[in-house]
Amino acid sequence: MADALKVGIAGLGTVGASLVRIIQSRADELATTCGRAIEITAVTARDKSRDRGLDLSGISWIDTPEALASEADIDVFVELMGGAEGAAARSVRTALERGLHVVTANKALLAASGVELAKIAEERGALLNFEAAVAGGIPVIKALRESLTGNTVSRVYGIMNGTCNYILTRMEKEGLSFADCLKEAQRLGYAEADPAFDIEGNDTAHKLAILTTLAFGTQIAPDEIYLEGISNISIEDIHAAADLGYRIKLLGVAQRTETGIEQRVHPTMVPRDSVIAQVDGVTNAVAVESDILGELLMVGPGAGGNATASAVLGDIADIAKSQLGTQRVPVLGTPAVALAPYKRAQMQSHEGGYFIRLTVADRTGVFASIATCMAENGISLESIVQRGKPDGAESSKTIILVTHATMEDSVRKAVDAIKAESYLAGEPQVIRIERPQTF
Amino acid sequence: MADALKVGIAGLGTVGASLVRIIQSRADELATTCGRAIEITAVTARDKSRDRGLDLSGISWIDTPEALASEADIDVFVELMGGAEGAAARSVRTALERGLHVVTANKALLAASGVELAKIAEERGALLNFEAAVAGGIPVIKALRESLTGNTVSRVYGIMNGTCNYILTRMEKEGLSFADCLKEAQRLGYAEADPAFDIEGNDTAHKLAILTTLAFGTQIAPDEIYLEGISNISIEDIHAAADLGYRIKLLGVAQRTETGIEQRVHPTMVPRDSVIAQVDGVTNAVAVESDILGELLMVGPGAGGNATASAVLGDIADIAKSQLGTQRVPVLGTPAVALAPYKRAQMQSHEGGYFIRLTVADRTGVFASIATCMAENGISLESIVQRGKPDGAESSKTIILVTHATMEDSVRKAVDAIKAESYLAGEPQVIRIERPQTF
Repeated sequence: MADALKVGIAGLGTVGASLVRIIQSRADELATTCGRAIEITAVTARDKSRDRGLDLSGISWIDTPEALASEADIDVFVELMGGAEGAAARSVRTALERGLHVVTANKALLAASGVELAKIAEERGALLNFEAAVAGGIPVIKALRESLTGNTVSRVYGIMNGTCNYILTRMEKEGLSFADCLKEAQRLGYAEADPAFDIEGNDTAHKLAILTTLAFGTQIAPDEIYLEGISNISIEDIHAAADLGYRIKLLGVAQRTETGIEQRVHPTMVPRDSVIAQVDGVTNAVAVESDILGELLMVGPGAGGNATASAVLGDIADIAKSQLGTQRVPVLGTPAVALAPYKRAQMQSHEGGYFIRLTVADRTGVFASIATCMAENGISLESIVQRGKPDGAESSKTIILVTHATMEDSVRKAVDAIKAESYLAGEPQVIRIERPQTF
Repeated sequence: MADALKVGIAGLGTVGASLVRIIQSRADELATTCGRAIEITAVTARDKSRDRGLDLSGISWIDTPEALASEADIDVFVELMGGAEGAAARSVRTALERGLHVVTANKALLAASGVELAKIAEERGALLNFEAAVAGGIPVIKALRESLTGNTVSRVYGIMNGTCNYILTRMEKEGLSFADCLKEAQRLGYAEADPAFDIEGNDTAHKLAILTTLAFGTQIAPDEIYLEGISNISIEDIHAAADLGYRIKLLGVAQRTETGIEQRVHPTMVPRDSVIAQVDGVTNAVAVESDILGELLMVGPGAGGNATASAVLGDIADIAKSQLGTQRVPVLGTPAVALAPYKRAQMQSHEGGYFIRLTVADRTGVFASIATCMAENGISLESIVQRGKPDGAESSKTIILVTHATMEDSVRKAVDAIKAESYLAGEPQVIRIERPQTF
């Protein structure tokens, strides 16, 4: 049997501690499967004195991540600290420059510096694996990087933030408001005290930026993503969606268009009888549509110490199985030097169906005016629903329009035209519709 | 750049022809991604003169698969002929013994001889990849073999036969009989002229046997699978299932129990709001439940020339990327010499919910008798539905029972006891219920 693979771990939070326990308790199985032992030889974390319930005897404690990366006797540097800059970024770069293999769960770092890091890894013949960075335990990086080789991807999209999906699911199933569901998510530990990063879509955007690069072979471009969070979604939207045969999910979508790559994160209506519509709670799902394979959907846990540790362990095992580290899967699917520049498709040219909810004064001519604004912008309608407001406090009513496929630009112009009239009794709500290819 | 990977293909049917076209038309992308060119240098098929619309210039035509395997100047032998014995079996063995890497889509061969072939491959340091053999384009082999390393799997199950899923979906959506849907499937090319292999569950069983070995590290045991096909499912069952909140799917299920590994293929009721219940038509889905990662579900095309070719190409690309073929993923997840003997859990000790549909004479005391037979076998009931027969031809009625989790043995005894009474007006229908862990 080959020499043990020596692993150094930077970061002993939930994921790091879970990883240590798993590697120690399954040493024999791992050695059998990988053809060599996997041995944790060094660790580093912020506080040496903290009791993590781990047996760290025989493992070197290193004071800083940078020292672990530059000096420790390890083959693989596992980065589980997080953050796009600072110690995580410095130590990962140092490890790769030293020729060490790196495994990381750090989506922020990859979104910010993935191409640069991939270049260093490929120059040094090191592996850089990051399955845990996107959709936790779902092996979507491996699918895109390995299984889909030779395919031309047309669209990749998914539910990649458990907090948002939990909130939207609760709102729908229990008729609760966004604010109440957010509080509940915070109480259960599914949402941070400052939830903006999740609910405004930034977390999904980081993950989407990584998937876009793997899917389309372009430079990572996290700042080129159209972003809309879920805080604006009301229970009324969810009920209206249900009535029309849809459910609302926060999707990250990247898609090849004639003018470039569209990247967008926004609340999305998906057909109720599609498979992805059934993905509830904190569960994640990622779909990839490509020209040879067709449609692939993967559903699983998007977060959690164990699920994330499982993905990290799979990455370490891949390195262990690759004798002498000679397997050369390009880090980002395409060799970093061969990545194309990212060319952004303008959101105005996005084409799709739209749900538009308008609260209007209950007076003669309003409906005709709305219909005219739509027609003048070339928008044809799939369905129109008009309801009285249940509270009856004002003489207002709700009009819901669902459009056939149309341009974002046309929808914005039509809505602006409606806003210029005097009958609107509230801000119009616009939600994009996304349809899976076949299931 | 390293030397081109020389590929020999045995079999130029739908999948083989599709593979040739893809490798030829995407040569540049493949070379970039894999770090070396992938070149088809030799092929063999039954009829040399047949026009397949392929450009085979510059490719050696070899007369037999055995000659391709033993003599041609190739690095990888791709077997796309099919069949557990004969030329496919002989040539794959020959290729492995020669130290060539092998890629195959042949589930029958793997179910019959997978362990033996894995041993030869591992002794010779050759790779044996077979992603296309189970669930077509869905990368479930890779997930089990690589991503889940270190996990202990508790259950693997799935919809792995498109013909059956197409028929069941049509029956449900259109209220058609099994016979009518089968005819339609044959007309559309989704079912063979002799459909027994699909609809009686044998095809699913081959695939399940392979998944079981990957999931549980035991010898392949296709003959130890409990088997029930879908020809016995009536539209009445489907309607009754829908009323109770279930849909009927043909599942292959392998599960770890205290007494051994359960392997079974049978029509199954799954909760209507589960994700897998939403998988319709010819689409396949495979779920894996494991202790670290949790639950993973993959949905995609289970068959078709292109989807299958995509999986085969992914396998070839893995070999190309593994410089000098030094990556050593064990063929069956566990090294073949370390596979445990397969220990079968008896079907009688299977535990789960059951749907039981009885057609009985409409007379006093029948219901009490049925309830007594259930109670005497310790079976507690989740729901009971009684309906008159719509045709009214006889004075019979239908009684539907859904049990809480109980033993197969108890259900069989209870049904036998009911059959011993005089009031049954038809063969009892028993359908097992399967519940996903969380979604």
